[in-house]
Amino acid sequence: MEKINIKSLAEELNLSISTVSRALHDSYEISAETKKRVVELATKLNYVPNHHASSLRSKKSKMIAVVIPEVADSFFAQAINGIESVAQENGYHVLIYLTHESLQKEQAILKDFQCGRVDGVLMSVSAETTGALHIKELMAKGIPLVFFDRASDEVETARITTDDLKSSYAATQHLLESGCQKIALLSVSDSLSISNERMAGYKQALLDHHLSFNTADIVLCTNNEEQNLQRMISLLQNSNRPDGIIATVEKLTTSVYLACHSLQLSIPNHVKVISFSNLQSALLLNPSLTTITQPAFEMGRSAATLIFKSLKNKNFNLKGERLVIPSRLDIRSSTVT
Amino acid sequence: MEKINIKSLAEELNLSISTVSRALHDSYEISAETKKRVVELATKLNYVPNHHASSLRSKKSKMIAVVIPEVADSFFAQAINGIESVAQENGYHVLIYLTHESLQKEQAILKDFQCGRVDGVLMSVSAETTGALHIKELMAKGIPLVFFDRASDEVETARITTDDLKSSYAATQHLLESGCQKIALLSVSDSLSISNERMAGYKQALLDHHLSFNTADIVLCTNNEEQNLQRMISLLQNSNRPDGIIATVEKLTTSVYLACHSLQLSIPNHVKVISFSNLQSALLLNPSLTTITQPAFEMGRSAATLIFKSLKNKNFNLKGERLVIPSRLDIRSSTVT
Repeated sequence: MEKINIKSLAEELNLSISTVSRALHDSYEISAETKKRVVELATKLNYVPNHHASSLRSKKSKMIAVVIPEVADSFFAQAINGIESVAQENGYHVLIYLTHESLQKEQAILKDFQCGRVDGVLMSVSAETTGALHIKELMAKGIPLVFFDRASDEVETARITTDDLKSSYAATQHLLESGCQKIALLSVSDSLSISNERMAGYKQALLDHHLSFNTADIVLCTNNEEQNLQRMISLLQNSNRPDGIIATVEKLTTSVYLACHSLQLSIPNHVKVISFSNLQSALLLNPSLTTITQPAFEMGRSAATLIFKSLKNKNFNLKGERLVIPSRLDIRSSTVT
Repeated sequence: MEKINIKSLAEELNLSISTVSRALHDSYEISAETKKRVVELATKLNYVPNHHASSLRSKKSKMIAVVIPEVADSFFAQAINGIESVAQENGYHVLIYLTHESLQKEQAILKDFQCGRVDGVLMSVSAETTGALHIKELMAKGIPLVFFDRASDEVETARITTDDLKSSYAATQHLLESGCQKIALLSVSDSLSISNERMAGYKQALLDHHLSFNTADIVLCTNNEEQNLQRMISLLQNSNRPDGIIATVEKLTTSVYLACHSLQLSIPNHVKVISFSNLQSALLLNPSLTTITQPAFEMGRSAATLIFKSLKNKNFNLKGERLVIPSRLDIRSSTVT
């Protein structure tokens, strides 16, 4: 016996497949008379809707989205390469969306995904992101989401991170062992999970070296380069200036170097500098930059691998997935006298 | 007199706006009876379709795509920021697609746009791109496309470029005036329009200084960093090595600096280096890097402005649009002894 599907119903009734489908879904766009004809024939021929095919049909975007704060950062540029390497193996395209550290923009982007534009989302939240309603709403629509690097603690899903606390501890310890006594920590957020982890590692290292933590040594920077440069200049002009600086975000390094150059402070003699950075040119800077080098490519690869696991197997639960890939301390001239 | 539009027709007939619209467009999904009611009322009330509104309504992806070779390049990162600044003003999202310099990937991406995923495309072609069938096919579907930076000469549409020939001439002239006698030009393509322009500027400057052009001084680099580094080392190990290098692509600078460091060649004493680059850290390198600084942000802004002009006004013809925004020579320590 021939299999009865929407196509054969349409042929029999001399209607389009789309009309038959809409009629079976009781669409207001189809006249009552047409609906009656379709339903009568479907009943007569014992038509059973193929839900699997229908679900496959709706999952046809073949796109995964990457939602990140910016691309002018070598961490994200390398993570994207990791993500694309996996997407390509799976025949998927990657769409990149930038939030520019704006929660409002992040919300608008995720709202847009609700209509099924993409099959899965890889995300690093913006520095402004506190609530997580927009993320939960998207996941409630059945779209899988994996965090990489910057996660929201309020959302239960897979997250690929690096050992932010441990590597920040190592950076602080390295500066202390190099003779620093007053270390400033440059941050871009007081709410991001990674910022908090890096702060915690810094505090712990001070404590273990019997030094007290001083809130004035935490400098909150913005997305505005000119402002950041001015802040660095005031910080380093101060008579009680730091002799060590940890930049928790790559782009802040440029401000620190520029401020030191303009104030004629020597790195590393007056100020030692270490940065969380994947900048290829770190070792070409004057002086070459000591970095916490993050496994950006691997983090992107792992996050993408998890999304595809979830897309291929609906029973695979992302919730419990946690992967921490360690960063590496690369000591160069900016911290060695 | 009240303005008659689809909404008022729908209210009068107690139908949905969508049903009235479909009836007026003679959709097969609407019953003949409903169509008759709608058309009779529309005729009676002298309804005139608002084509502008209708064209805006059908353009509902509210997305423009940016197709570029990579994001790990400060030119593209800054151009994206320029594009996003205009997209935001127009209530559009920006999707970023990376070709990784692969023609095959570029073709697949453009194929995907044919289904109306995006309303317009801003594009910098890959280093591999020769034919332009994939671009013409997309434009034939009515999707407007604007080139920025790297254009295809085979496609008639708007292009925003910088003065590649002139700035390459200026770079070559600067090296010659600084005492260089053998200048190598590092390129990534022998087919890209911008590569050809930069090559032409280089040749013209040599000619004007009564120096002969030597094909062996053109070094074609790849997308593989390790390979490029090896190529630079062989180039600089050669007894007949260049005393000046022009990197036509930012990322090649790292290879040149690394090769000089490892061979203990001094920049600028043994080799003078100039690069097409928007790298923020150019002035922090050891030594600080002389650059041809491109108007990346402005080029992105201008390209996006043209796309929105075309999306808002179907009569606006992109074909004749040409905009050349000049680059700037920033002289720093890498070329000054």
